Amino acid sequence: MYGAIEAGGTKMVVAAGDENGNILKTARIPTGTPSETIPKILEFFEGQDIEAIGIGAFGPVCLDKDSADYGRIGKSPKLPWVGFSWKEAFSGTGITVAVDTDVNAACLGEVMYGSGKGLSDVIYITIGTGIGVGVYCSGELLHGMLHPEAGHILLPVREGDDTKGSCPYHKNCFEGLASGPAIKIRYGKEAFELLEREEVWELEADYISKALMQYICCYSPKRIILGGGVMNVEKLFPMIREKTSGYLNGYLDTAELKNMDNYIVPALCNGDQGIKGALFLAKNITGGQS
Amino acid sequence: MYGAIEAGGTKMVVAAGDENGNILKTARIPTGTPSETIPKILEFFEGQDIEAIGIGAFGPVCLDKDSADYGRIGKSPKLPWVGFSWKEAFSGTGITVAVDTDVNAACLGEVMYGSGKGLSDVIYITIGTGIGVGVYCSGELLHGMLHPEAGHILLPVREGDDTKGSCPYHKNCFEGLASGPAIKIRYGKEAFELLEREEVWELEADYISKALMQYICCYSPKRIILGGGVMNVEKLFPMIREKTSGYLNGYLDTAELKNMDNYIVPALCNGDQGIKGALFLAKNITGGQS
Repeated sequence: MYGAIEAGGTKMVVAAGDENGNILKTARIPTGTPSETIPKILEFFEGQDIEAIGIGAFGPVCLDKDSADYGRIGKSPKLPWVGFSWKEAFSGTGITVAVDTDVNAACLGEVMYGSGKGLSDVIYITIGTGIGVGVYCSGELLHGMLHPEAGHILLPVREGDDTKGSCPYHKNCFEGLASGPAIKIRYGKEAFELLEREEVWELEADYISKALMQYICCYSPKRIILGGGVMNVEKLFPMIREKTSGYLNGYLDTAELKNMDNYIVPALCNGDQGIKGALFLAKNITGGQS
Repeated sequence: MYGAIEAGGTKMVVAAGDENGNILKTARIPTGTPSETIPKILEFFEGQDIEAIGIGAFGPVCLDKDSADYGRIGKSPKLPWVGFSWKEAFSGTGITVAVDTDVNAACLGEVMYGSGKGLSDVIYITIGTGIGVGVYCSGELLHGMLHPEAGHILLPVREGDDTKGSCPYHKNCFEGLASGPAIKIRYGKEAFELLEREEVWELEADYISKALMQYICCYSPKRIILGGGVMNVEKLFPMIREKTSGYLNGYLDTAELKNMDNYIVPALCNGDQGIKGALFLAKNITGGQS
């Protein structure tokens, strides 16, 4: 049995599952302070005969396995968690932990069990309360110096769009222009109240496509998987495929880009991509392969 | 002995060298059509007892080792080379070839023998006639679907900069806004004639910094190495370091980003990074490690 935690700002999804990504038991625990939350998580896993736990965590989080800080949360806006270490939290249990970012775990879940199956180079983008990008390249999750923060790339702003954006750090970043809160700031209403207003989704698709064009140039992914609350607006998909092709403007000539319906696709794991990916991280650290 | 080719649009640099990246013999061959150029390259390598040849090639070029098209040039603007295969060109010689892009080879050269020594995650950016990005992540060169084309990411245009740019494909891409030809289009003069005009380099540093901010978000590199003709203007470096920090605006908190002088650095191989990287590709394919 393997354990998995999808650690988010409002809730922690915990699960126990098998080596094939099947979830056998799961629970949701509200995210309080570490001292409120961690005992409940430990209790969930007690007596489950867990070999290892995979964790998809909000960041910034140290992913350097050779560092004493592996699994430690950095300067997060979630203040009670700054300095908290996922590795240390489980050090008394004898259970090994494998930590990655929430979006990298979700990307891995889609690669192993969803829309990215069998591919060596895939990116997974979640567009919701925030925008995050999980990156799987050459058959591995990308970490680097810290981990990708590709939701914060700068975008050219549409003429006439004078929104102040939702990101406190960057005036014109993708998250600041196109996340759920960005839509609310621009129109004064929640996304679900704006479903019938075509101009809202045309602009949203435009910003997403500008970002996708950059990711294609940077990562050269074999497929792009889109998830998160905003992407439940299904009419965005055909608009994004068309506009992304438009921004590439024929510059890249590959078989994949000739079939955009198969290149830019929705997530397939029904919201379980993060927890399934975390389960795979646990399996992987005990000797499987990623 | 290993062979190396740095294949450019105007010239081919060929070299024979040892397993430590030392170049023992080299020559420059003007780039004509394949039937003009290849016989001269074959002649250079004749009788050199070459075990393998590494090639850093202009793209687009197929890098998929499992494909029959490995080493084949795609829809390049260099029309006589479209469909040419580096692998097939050497098939009669019994010499194995290893092909990567020119910028990936240069990145590898800097990782093995220059500014990126010992690091697992490095990007190398050449800013000259074009702009190209070589990407080394998790200890491997990034290929993906084709290879990165990160010189073509879209950038927010500075207010008042109404240049039409130099890229025929993208109105506001990095190459179109900041390559040597882009500078010439904007000011009507060559870069070297504009050295004293501060506003030229302030704007150039600004576009480069906007691009670097995106690359940092996307790749999370441990170091960024800048080369190419435009980067011979040394006063760009301090401006780029300051502006890149400004665009990140404190969002990422890592030890590397606290020391920008050591984070954004010039290439160290004196223009030999491409050929040294190609030499390493050759060594690598015969059983070394990358």
